[in-house]
Parts: sequence; structure tokens; C-alpha cells
Amino acid sequence: MKYSLLKILPLFLGGILFSQQNSDSLQFKKISDEILVNGKAYENLRDLTQNVGQRLSGSAGYEKATDWAVQKLKEAGADKVWKEEVMVPVWVRGAESLQIKEGNGKWKTLKMLSLGNSEGTKGKDVEAEIAFVRTKEDFDKLPDSQVKGKIIFFNYAFNQTFVNTGQAYGDAGKYRRSAASWAGKRGAKAVIIRSLSSAFDDVPHTGAMRYDEDDTAKIAAVAIGPKSADELEKTLKTQKVFAKLNSNCTMKGEKLSHNVIGEITGNKDKSVLVVSGHLDSWDVGEGAHDDGTGIVQSIEILRAFKKLGLKNNHTIRVVCFANEENGLKGGTTYAENAKKNNEKQIFAIESDGGGFTPRGFGLVMTPEKRAQVQSWRNLFAPYNVHNFELQYAGADISPLEPAGVPLAELFVDPQRYFDIHHSNEDTFDKVNRRELLLGAVAMGQLMYMIDKNW
Amino acid sequence: MKYSLLKILPLFLGGILFSQQNSDSLQFKKISDEILVNGKAYENLRDLTQNVGQRLSGSAGYEKATDWAVQKLKEAGADKVWKEEVMVPVWVRGAESLQIKEGNGKWKTLKMLSLGNSEGTKGKDVEAEIAFVRTKEDFDKLPDSQVKGKIIFFNYAFNQTFVNTGQAYGDAGKYRRSAASWAGKRGAKAVIIRSLSSAFDDVPHTGAMRYDEDDTAKIAAVAIGPKSADELEKTLKTQKVFAKLNSNCTMKGEKLSHNVIGEITGNKDKSVLVVSGHLDSWDVGEGAHDDGTGIVQSIEILRAFKKLGLKNNHTIRVVCFANEENGLKGGTTYAENAKKNNEKQIFAIESDGGGFTPRGFGLVMTPEKRAQVQSWRNLFAPYNVHNFELQYAGADISPLEPAGVPLAELFVDPQRYFDIHHSNEDTFDKVNRRELLLGAVAMGQLMYMIDKNW
Repeated sequence: MKYSLLKILPLFLGGILFSQQNSDSLQFKKISDEILVNGKAYENLRDLTQNVGQRLSGSAGYEKATDWAVQKLKEAGADKVWKEEVMVPVWVRGAESLQIKEGNGKWKTLKMLSLGNSEGTKGKDVEAEIAFVRTKEDFDKLPDSQVKGKIIFFNYAFNQTFVNTGQAYGDAGKYRRSAASWAGKRGAKAVIIRSLSSAFDDVPHTGAMRYDEDDTAKIAAVAIGPKSADELEKTLKTQKVFAKLNSNCTMKGEKLSHNVIGEITGNKDKSVLVVSGHLDSWDVGEGAHDDGTGIVQSIEILRAFKKLGLKNNHTIRVVCFANEENGLKGGTTYAENAKKNNEKQIFAIESDGGGFTPRGFGLVMTPEKRAQVQSWRNLFAPYNVHNFELQYAGADISPLEPAGVPLAELFVDPQRYFDIHHSNEDTFDKVNRRELLLGAVAMGQLMYMIDKNW
Repeated sequence: MKYSLLKILPLFLGGILFSQQNSDSLQFKKISDEILVNGKAYENLRDLTQNVGQRLSGSAGYEKATDWAVQKLKEAGADKVWKEEVMVPVWVRGAESLQIKEGNGKWKTLKMLSLGNSEGTKGKDVEAEIAFVRTKEDFDKLPDSQVKGKIIFFNYAFNQTFVNTGQAYGDAGKYRRSAASWAGKRGAKAVIIRSLSSAFDDVPHTGAMRYDEDDTAKIAAVAIGPKSADELEKTLKTQKVFAKLNSNCTMKGEKLSHNVIGEITGNKDKSVLVVSGHLDSWDVGEGAHDDGTGIVQSIEILRAFKKLGLKNNHTIRVVCFANEENGLKGGTTYAENAKKNNEKQIFAIESDGGGFTPRGFGLVMTPEKRAQVQSWRNLFAPYNVHNFELQYAGADISPLEPAGVPLAELFVDPQRYFDIHHSNEDTFDKVNRRELLLGAVAMGQLMYMIDKNW
């Protein structure tokens, strides 16, 4: 591309002139300029991912992250910073390996990750023939002889036809969450699932599973990469394949941990607007897009409001939630305490779709409030923020929904997230500085409008 | 992120049901599914970037690329494929180096790239003190004693406050294009410019410059990375710095080369709809986003139309333009021949902003035609394609504008492009498969609507 984009300039100048007649547009531009030029979110993310790193709930890494968050909230200018006690589950991975062999062939090691919250094989080899299905329906049709004593391989593919990949993730999610319970109840020895991934590489992705309450077997559950899954299915169509799994993951009770909270006191009243992400990550990769980006964006908004002296009417509160990944205890505890303390929470937003280019907001609120937010659409248009139609909100703030708190989530471009989510590939180098900052800009602009109008 | 996106599902199903009542929506979905599931664009891009690689006009790489394009258009099912003769300039880089030293200090090598079309130092060391300015205005104020015999360093920064980075690129463009002429006319020995880059790394970016017609000096012009530029400015504020440049780049006349064209014949008439990219690249990196992606997307549309049996009314023509980067001879020759042959060209679109997630279309056409395209907005909404307000079109198709041909460009998310554009970082691994394919989907859908309605 050479000179052609120059032709946009007149249009842009027109936009600027119009915006000078509109004070909200001017405030939008101030927030955008401050964050794009002086934003600390990218350097903070570098620090969090490189110097704290992985931070699964209950781990030393998570505890280090809470101290990091306290420090960064203070540096950003918070009037008040504190830790809120949360009891979190402690799940540990340990050494793990998965090998397969065809008939009398040699054992071959596959890249794998045990699913979060799953029990392992207690360090013993669990060996069995693999039985293969693609769907739950196919699994239900398998005769018991093909389940009992076998290792069941669920190869349900990520549906590439969904434009918004979150739908494909939701569509395939039950295999990660429940396959171990389905198979365990019928006497299988373990399950292998195809990773919930939009990529065509061989990267395994972990993520939370859960055993049913009445599930006594608690068999091991592991994920393999898309390429290994394709190859394994191909082999299984012509011959028997055996698997040998050895893993040590286990749930080790609970531990006292913390949400980290910082706020700028409101000038008018004590109502609270929450902007948030989750501070915990999986124990693989660096937790960059999931959800280091949501954390540094939330802190960035506090920094920018303080720096710009925006004089918020309501208290703007940054919440760095604990334990989103494997328990949601941070979110449920926060909501319980807010209720107990009779806090007036009038809005909460989370950024937990990665630090990609922003596109809009999921909105979970009354039709009247949603219509009001949608009426601000033109203010967001110059920032390429256009979608106000989705109706979903972040997992951590969803426990506030029963109390009628209007909720939102930053909707970001969803094409790259599930290539790397919950895997060793979720690293700082996958985050683009401008995309990250623009996500903070969009949330900051929405916070500004809600603070002024609600 | 865990389960929250599941909440989108009902909304999406609602969208599907609605679309079943609308045949255009159904065709949109068919095009999208075909490309997202069976698309060849990503593998074609891998092949082009890894097996052909750099392909500057006039180079052996470009000639190889034309054979590649012929082959790929045939594989995609084109009814007719040919090469169109184009005379292109031949610019060659050769060895080059830039060193700086402070006062009596040691020479230190900086990463650099000569600007495209520039003349070098003919392999000789050109050594002088550096005079520093940020802007053209500052340069005009420099006394002649500070210009003559000096090497002028223009450190004009990429303006991060523009949301659409193309505007920042346009804003800074004159320094790359014209600084050598400004300085050469006043007796400077060479110019160093800050790369036109949105990044904060030390990657130098090349790109076309031009000497004025009356420019007899033709001094050398090189770009350095943003980090080197920042450091150099800082040093120059406290002490004298000297530079030593040695380069061999030069323009070596013209050469016969080709555009590559493939088409599916129309069922109704001989009017032509063009979908295009440029096949040439700079002689650095792999020409992945600039503009391998535009090429493979255009070929993908032909493949998908053929595969789906869409029975286009008009001829759908893929044009792989030569020499966009340093001459635009492919575009000007194509327009000249179209005029000479009395072809009825009723629409042309180019993809030359990188293979990033699509957001809309720049439209250069009559207000009536633009309003018609904008009236299709709701059909594009489920694909996150939302912006129909920009008024620009691809450089290669702009020579068709005087003949009144309605023009468009795929508008993609612009945040990452200028981090890598015209540099060694423009490589295949920077391209996301789904983002690339969705760009082809959006262009294919627009081609479908225009073919049906114009």
C-alpha cells in the first residue's frame, strides 16, 4: 500500500470538526489520546507476564501477582487499594505424559495437557486400547464393551464456520467439561479430548473440567493438539491404537487467597462502577491474553481518569479477580461481600476476551439501559467500536446479575484468541500494543458515559 | 474466559433463522462457509511467501511469482489466465551500511534500509556531521551552513493518536518520499529518516521515495528504526554526531514484466468486475501482508465462486498487479489497455491493507452507488463488517478512476500493519488464517452483491 490512505484525511478532519461541537466527543478524544500516547498498559503487561508469569489460583505465582497488582494500582494513582479475602481451590499439575502405539509398534509421545481440576493417574501408568468417537451422541451409541476398560478419545472439531469464535468454543465446551464424567460412569479408564482450538497446529489447550457430584470414578482427562487429534483419528480408522497415560495432577483442597481492588473515590456519591479482569491464569504460557490484558486495561483506565482529572461522580473501582479459571471464587466472593455490605453497584464491566482490537460491548441489562448505551453508538464510531448487540458479560461479574447490576463485557475481535487460549502459546509477544490500548480506550469511554449519565 | 460466550448462542440462532428468509443472507453464508472451511488462501500464502519469497519488480523473484500466480489461478478454476505486458523500473539495493559516532568516539553500526528508488553512494563512504530536525518547517529554518555538506536526520514521529493508522502513515509520508530532494537541493550529502512505523522497536522500514524532476543531486536516503531514531535524537541534543553511509542501490532502467490475470467468464455479458492485489513486494521480508494477502484473497474468491457454481452475470477478473511498490506501472498499464480495448469495467476492488480482520470497505464512486452499497450494511453485520464510510481505494486500481469506474478497497483492522509494513518483519507468521480468510469472505460477498445488482 502506498499513498491511497491519504484520501481518508479529509473525512477524518470532518470528524474532528464535528467533534469539537460535542463535549462528549472531546472527552472521548482526550481519553483516547492519553491512553494511546501515555498508556502504561503494554509495559505493565510485559512486567506481569515476564516477571510474574503463570499465576494459577493457589500457586506462589498468584500470590506474587496480588502484590504486583497492589503496587500497580498505587502507581496508577488509586485513592485506596486493598486485598479481599477469597478461599480458592488448589489444583496442581505435576509431571505428565501420554504415549500411543499401534498394535505391536513402538510407543510414541504426544504433546498433551491434563485438563484443569482433573485427577491424574497418581503417577502410575494407565494403559488401554483407545476407543474413538466424535460426538456425545456417538459415545452414547458405543456398546459397553467398547467403553469399559478403554481410553475414550473424543475428537469433536472446533466449528470454523462460526464467525465469532466464542460460539465455536461454547459449542465444543461440553467435551472438555464433561467427557471424563460421561466416560468414567461407564467404566472407561481415561479420556483424551481434542483441544478447544481454532488453530491447525499441534498445541494442546487446557481449561476447566468438572466431575459430576455423583461421579465416584474421577478418571483422568487430557487434551491433545488438533494435529495429533487428526492423525490419531486417521490411524484409528484402520487399526487398533493403545495409549499409556501417566499423570500426577490432583486437587489439594482450598487456600486463603485474594481479589485485589483499587478505586478512585466518586465526587458525588458512594455508588460503584466496576472495571475488571481476572488476575489468575492457567499454569501454562504467560496468561497474556487470558487475562493479563484485562487486568492492565482496567488499571490503565484508573490511571487515565486520574491523570486527566476527570472528576468521576461515582466511585470507579478496578477489581482484579481471583480464580476465574477453575472455580470463579473471586467473582462469587466479591458479589457476596457487596451484598453483605449493602454497596450500591450500578455497573460492572469485564475485559476477558483477550487484548485484541475492540469492536463493541456485550450488554446484560434492562432493555431501557441497553437502548441508552446503544444511543451512544455514534460517539464510538470513530474508534471502530460498532457492535452493541451481543448479550453476554464476563464470568467474574456474572454473580452480580441476580442483584440486578447492569453488566457488560468488552467485545474484541475474536479471530486469534482460541489459537492460543489456555495454552503455552498465550504469551506477551502475541499482544499488539495498539490493540491492547484501544481496548482500554473503549472501556474508559464507556465508563465515562455511564459515570456521567447513571 | 470460560462459559460466558455461550450466552451469545441464542442471539446467533435468531440471526440464522432470520437469514433463512433472505436469499442474499443465505448466499453470504454459503460464501463464508466455503471459504472458512475449504479456503486455500492461507496455504497459498504459505507457498508464495516460503517458496517464492521477496518479489520486487524487475527481480527474478517477481518473475517466479508471475508463474506461481498463473498456476494458482488455473488451480482455482479460472476459465482463462494470461500475462499482460508491463514495463517496470528495475531498482536494486546491493550492500549497504550506516555507522555513527559521537565526537572522537567509535563507529557504531545502525540497522538501516535504503529507501526504494533512491541512489546510493556508489559503494563509497559518505561521511559528514548529522544535522537534526523533526519537521519540514524546522528544516526550512535551518541556516544553509547547517545543511550544506551535512547529513540531515528527519525524526518525524508516527502520530499514535490517529485511530486509523493509515492516517498517521499518510501524515508522515512526505518525509520518506521527499526528504532527499529537499535536502539535496540545499547541498546536503545524504538524508536519514525515521521509519514510518507504528512500533517502538528498532526495525527499519523501506518504501518508495522520488527525486523531483529538477533534482540533479539525487543524494542517498535511508531509514532507521524508531529506537535508533529516538536514541540518535537524544544524543544529538548534547553533542555532535557523525555518520558514515555506504550503499550501492541504484535505478537500472526498465524491464519487460507482467500483470497476471485470470477470470471466470460472465453468463450474461462481457462487463468486468475486478478483484485484485499486487504481486510485487519490497526486497525485504516476505511480502506477506503487503500484499501476498491481497493476491491470495483475490484468487480465493475466484476459487469459491467456481466451487459454489455461483453463475456470475459479469466476468469476474482477478488482477495480480505488477510494480505497485515503486512505480504503479501495473495499474497504469492495465487501465490504459482497458481503455484501448473498450472494455466495460463496472467495478474494481483491491485488498492492499494487509490480511487483517475485515471491517468494511473504502468506496470511491457516485453518491448513488455508495448509498446502494451502504444499503447492504445489514447483510454484512453478522460478519463484523461495519464501516462503509471511508472514501479511498487501492493504488493499483486508481488509474481506472478517470474512466468513472466505481472503486473500492477492503478496509481491514489497521492496528498491526504499520508495525511490519515494508520491513523484514512482514512475514507469513504474522498472518492469521481466519483473519485472512474472513477478508476474502467479505470481498466475495461484496462481489456477489455487485454482480447481481449492477
